[in-house]
Amino acid sequence: MGDAPLKRENEGDELGQKVKKQKGDPEDDPSGNGEECGEENILSGFKTTAVLKDSAREKTIFLHGKLDEQEAVVILQKTPITVVSVAEMFASSKLKLEMRNDIYSTYQLQPPAHLNVLKATVVCPATEKHVKKYQVQESFLVEETGEDYLSITLPYIQEKSFSLQWVFNILEKKAEADRIVYEDPDPDVGFVLLPDFKWDQKQTHDLYLIAIVHQRDLKSIRELTAAHLPLLQNICTKGKEAILKRYGLPASKLRVYFHYQPSYYHLHVHFTALASEAPGSGVERAHLLSDVIQNLRADGGFYRQRSLSFPLRADDGLLAKFQQAGRL
Amino acid sequence: MGDAPLKRENEGDELGQKVKKQKGDPEDDPSGNGEECGEENILSGFKTTAVLKDSAREKTIFLHGKLDEQEAVVILQKTPITVVSVAEMFASSKLKLEMRNDIYSTYQLQPPAHLNVLKATVVCPATEKHVKKYQVQESFLVEETGEDYLSITLPYIQEKSFSLQWVFNILEKKAEADRIVYEDPDPDVGFVLLPDFKWDQKQTHDLYLIAIVHQRDLKSIRELTAAHLPLLQNICTKGKEAILKRYGLPASKLRVYFHYQPSYYHLHVHFTALASEAPGSGVERAHLLSDVIQNLRADGGFYRQRSLSFPLRADDGLLAKFQQAGRL
Repeated sequence: MGDAPLKRENEGDELGQKVKKQKGDPEDDPSGNGEECGEENILSGFKTTAVLKDSAREKTIFLHGKLDEQEAVVILQKTPITVVSVAEMFASSKLKLEMRNDIYSTYQLQPPAHLNVLKATVVCPATEKHVKKYQVQESFLVEETGEDYLSITLPYIQEKSFSLQWVFNILEKKAEADRIVYEDPDPDVGFVLLPDFKWDQKQTHDLYLIAIVHQRDLKSIRELTAAHLPLLQNICTKGKEAILKRYGLPASKLRVYFHYQPSYYHLHVHFTALASEAPGSGVERAHLLSDVIQNLRADGGFYRQRSLSFPLRADDGLLAKFQQAGRL
Repeated sequence: MGDAPLKRENEGDELGQKVKKQKGDPEDDPSGNGEECGEENILSGFKTTAVLKDSAREKTIFLHGKLDEQEAVVILQKTPITVVSVAEMFASSKLKLEMRNDIYSTYQLQPPAHLNVLKATVVCPATEKHVKKYQVQESFLVEETGEDYLSITLPYIQEKSFSLQWVFNILEKKAEADRIVYEDPDPDVGFVLLPDFKWDQKQTHDLYLIAIVHQRDLKSIRELTAAHLPLLQNICTKGKEAILKRYGLPASKLRVYFHYQPSYYHLHVHFTALASEAPGSGVERAHLLSDVIQNLRADGGFYRQRSLSFPLRADDGLLAKFQQAGRL
């Protein structure tokens, strides 16, 4: 039995916050039924059993609980403050002085509800895996040799057979087709580029897109050889072009990288705004596409032979495998 | 005339957010006049002239503008989501479906205004200094070839002749001698290990130490060759041993890396806790010591020949040099 799909880079911090559109925006309500009309508040029945994670810095909270007798994970995130909304916010909020000292003062500001929405992400039914995925965990840095990959990591990935159905849905346009920003349909060097859920697409300083390759036999950078250079170069060139064209952001404003370990084993590339501290862009997990290309040009076996360091959470089954093999 | 005081480390991340208390909480309103009564909304007259900084991740925005004809800086921050408020929030919010794919769905959640306040910080009158302090600088990713280093970067470093006196003071025990955690005095492979100023040494989850090499002719990783492998291996082994002994933190809990560009041109290595998202540990600036060692073992000329990517701020003199050379 395969596990329920573990999706995208969602464990982190900024999960695609959407900002409430202005009232009266016609695209808000394609049904024409009126703004919130007919939308049942399914979350009113959610019973929290545990806080999985709680980030005061990012104003997010990850909850485990029950929704209609089913296990569920609910992620709440406050949305970014947009400059276009501040004038209305200042004009229509209630203000309460908290502290005054010299030229400094602080207030509590209570905007009207429609100017201040949150994003809620619901995973239901959620498996034990989802719950673990969102739970704060200690991490350990593992140094995986090329042999470790073949003897420990690859068998683990194969044994778990993580579902990639949601990826195939995207590649086959069975889901999220309207979110695709760019596609090169070539089966060898082609890819689909679409916004990551972590990005609300409201502003480019936290831009986050994912390029998912059409080739289905590439699990991660570990499997890349010089034969994949045309694919990588194509993603690099056309991905940047598409982002410049659509969002006006030039290559010098982008951080383009792989994760290793990735959170799902179908090759994909992250395009994030250099201006944002994107979660997962740390040196212990990210590999710049430009470095991967250079390394493979110099040595086609680079990613098969080198030791690669990455963090694994205490509850990660792969960490247990490394421990059993005496590699930690 | 002195400037108005520049206050605290307020530009950062979590600036003491206060969460709105529940209605009916008596300490809410010591005046007894009713909740927001009598509190004039001074921010309704604020006119924004510029966005100084805008963090989608942290849900904060820093604005420059005018308040009653005076220069002012206003900082708006959304407040953390508290677990005690979520039950009421779920029960009383409006919900709107945004997306559904398999077991995943996302919603826009609109809580009642009183459950969702912001914090506003006002600096008024603000000087030019305040404005600059809060202003974010744009960064650009530069791809420096080996030739660029010799023709652009190295001449720039030499021309600026940044003072390294403070580094020599440490190496010679003329300053900070009491802060040294470990020293290997060997002139070729030796180094001094001491806590970075960013770390308060109160807890190990944000541990941050720096190893400064005794050799004085190494500016950065660009100058490393296979001849430096004994030095690098020595720092790797003895640095980790010293941290385990002094702080109880094993190597699997550490992120050990160089910066390129470094902030000073005397070779040094960063040891940070894996658990902390240390600033500067992003893939665009950090180079794992273990990768540097592997790369030099495979190719002694690796760091002289490869293109290295790094961000430069708009006001960095080196960026101007790259622009003049038509390399951006």
